[in-house]
Amino acid sequence: MNDTASATGSAPSLAGLAGILEAGGPGLAALLLRAEKRLAEVAGGHGETLGAPAARTLNAGGKRLRPALVFLCAGSGRSEALVSAGVAVELVHMATLVHDDVLDRAALRRGQPTVFSTGGRTAATATGDLLFSRAFAELAGTGNEEAVAVLSQASSALARGELMQRGDAFSASVGLERYLERCRLKTGHLFEAACRLGAILGTPGSGAAAALGSFGSRIGLAFQILDDVLDVSGPAERTGKRPGADLLDGTVTMPLILARQADPALAEVDLRALPGAEAGEVAALCERIAATGALAASRRRALEEVARAKEALGQVNLGAEQREALELVADGVVERYA
Amino acid sequence: MNDTASATGSAPSLAGLAGILEAGGPGLAALLLRAEKRLAEVAGGHGETLGAPAARTLNAGGKRLRPALVFLCAGSGRSEALVSAGVAVELVHMATLVHDDVLDRAALRRGQPTVFSTGGRTAATATGDLLFSRAFAELAGTGNEEAVAVLSQASSALARGELMQRGDAFSASVGLERYLERCRLKTGHLFEAACRLGAILGTPGSGAAAALGSFGSRIGLAFQILDDVLDVSGPAERTGKRPGADLLDGTVTMPLILARQADPALAEVDLRALPGAEAGEVAALCERIAATGALAASRRRALEEVARAKEALGQVNLGAEQREALELVADGVVERYA
Repeated sequence: MNDTASATGSAPSLAGLAGILEAGGPGLAALLLRAEKRLAEVAGGHGETLGAPAARTLNAGGKRLRPALVFLCAGSGRSEALVSAGVAVELVHMATLVHDDVLDRAALRRGQPTVFSTGGRTAATATGDLLFSRAFAELAGTGNEEAVAVLSQASSALARGELMQRGDAFSASVGLERYLERCRLKTGHLFEAACRLGAILGTPGSGAAAALGSFGSRIGLAFQILDDVLDVSGPAERTGKRPGADLLDGTVTMPLILARQADPALAEVDLRALPGAEAGEVAALCERIAATGALAASRRRALEEVARAKEALGQVNLGAEQREALELVADGVVERYA
Repeated sequence: MNDTASATGSAPSLAGLAGILEAGGPGLAALLLRAEKRLAEVAGGHGETLGAPAARTLNAGGKRLRPALVFLCAGSGRSEALVSAGVAVELVHMATLVHDDVLDRAALRRGQPTVFSTGGRTAATATGDLLFSRAFAELAGTGNEEAVAVLSQASSALARGELMQRGDAFSASVGLERYLERCRLKTGHLFEAACRLGAILGTPGSGAAAALGSFGSRIGLAFQILDDVLDVSGPAERTGKRPGADLLDGTVTMPLILARQADPALAEVDLRALPGAEAGEVAALCERIAATGALAASRRRALEEVARAKEALGQVNLGAEQREALELVADGVVERYA
């Protein structure tokens, strides 16, 4: 599951967004506003065909974390191309959410009815495809070939991550490295792309794209790990979902991988039997995982990743304000789950 | 339904493909071969994640009509960018087929198991997304901004056409203009994009893109009309599907629209009641439609469109061989359904 915590209206907020906006200054706020207006135009620009449900999805908000990363990595860049890049990464993110909702048969996202629930499978699949296409149309308008390549690589990675997750479902043998690779594909690459796009189209330039991309990839990985921890630890009123939803899906995440190493009896649990089990049994499995210390260990791993993300910033010549704002985003990813 | 007739191994072949290859000369054959090699690399280039089913889909062939249009419109252009454009349009086409198969729960396409049937919904949705992403990655590599914009507009149109079709399903009031608009979105735009890409990246240049694009759009429209006629007229052994599959889906196509005008009693038929009806009843409805002359009238409309497509070629300065090859493609679209 991508981005579980944003799946409901009661999701944890990005703690520190106010701080980031403050650190980013009026420049960041103005860029986010321009991106928001452009997203509304995209939502409204396809008349009846994009339809009310998709417009609701686009307008329902979300944290706009990926556009914020584009803009923060862009330094003092303020071009229209940057706005397009912020819009494009958000559209790709939304396209995957709309497709995820079809696959999960989800009724609500961010407290709004999903495109799937109001329009059905066909409309939701086509809406996701449309959002993908619009993302590339936005970015193509910048005339920057490198930018289009960065986004298409990231969206390929997203799809490959989904395929890997499906292929590994219910596996008893998925190890830590494979899990981390999947997280990088599913989540890290789009965060990385956001940061790279900011560098390429902003004042840092393409030369800073690798280091800023590494920053993005690492906080994306931390974000996914913490999301996966929340699936096991989180009270339903916080996640909006039944605890252990990933386990029920057969998605093997870091908490289970570490718990299996610590408690070999857990390795014997057949996830395929879970969907028929009572809710109490799933909760009991979550508790067994927690009892091994796997949740705390997973959180530590996420924190290490955030620390390394901040280190990567040291390789780029950034202004003090820009660095501070990016560090706040990195911390915000952790605090969001605190 | 897009491209019904290619859905099975027993589909009508593109009559005249040999003739087109002959008219296109060794240049066309060489480009198609390069595109085929590149498609195989894309299929194999994602290791286990793209997976055997998607690779089978990519390798299963199909007529490669869209890449052929790219190359034929390119004149004497032979660049690697052209090959990328041919590959990109074919990847977008394949992505929509893979997603269509999910929505139709189709077991076979071109005689091969679909990604949906072997990998399930999640894998097939992600595979379609991956093929979309790879299409833009291919085209981004050309560094031609106009080309990326053309493809992203076409893939947006495809999705909008699907959404329109879904929104109009089972409608008693869909008129001819709305149907034609939907066909242009669903089918015409990608044919148009193929021709425009050929012009932009080939010797005709961007100045010839409008006229060649009009040629493509019109033969795409004819292609879709004839496909819709076949759904009503076609013997199952030819289409590989139960006759009237569109009617069962609630998809209102030209034959039904014209038949409703000719026989008001047909306008009273509630398509929603069809799925529960016996096969004989659907066949009887197809016969009632045919009895109004609607199939013949639809075919005539498709032929008019092909004639106008050929006229559009008159606005471009083409070599005799290039014109002849393009006219053969236009005729081939009709002969395919003869």
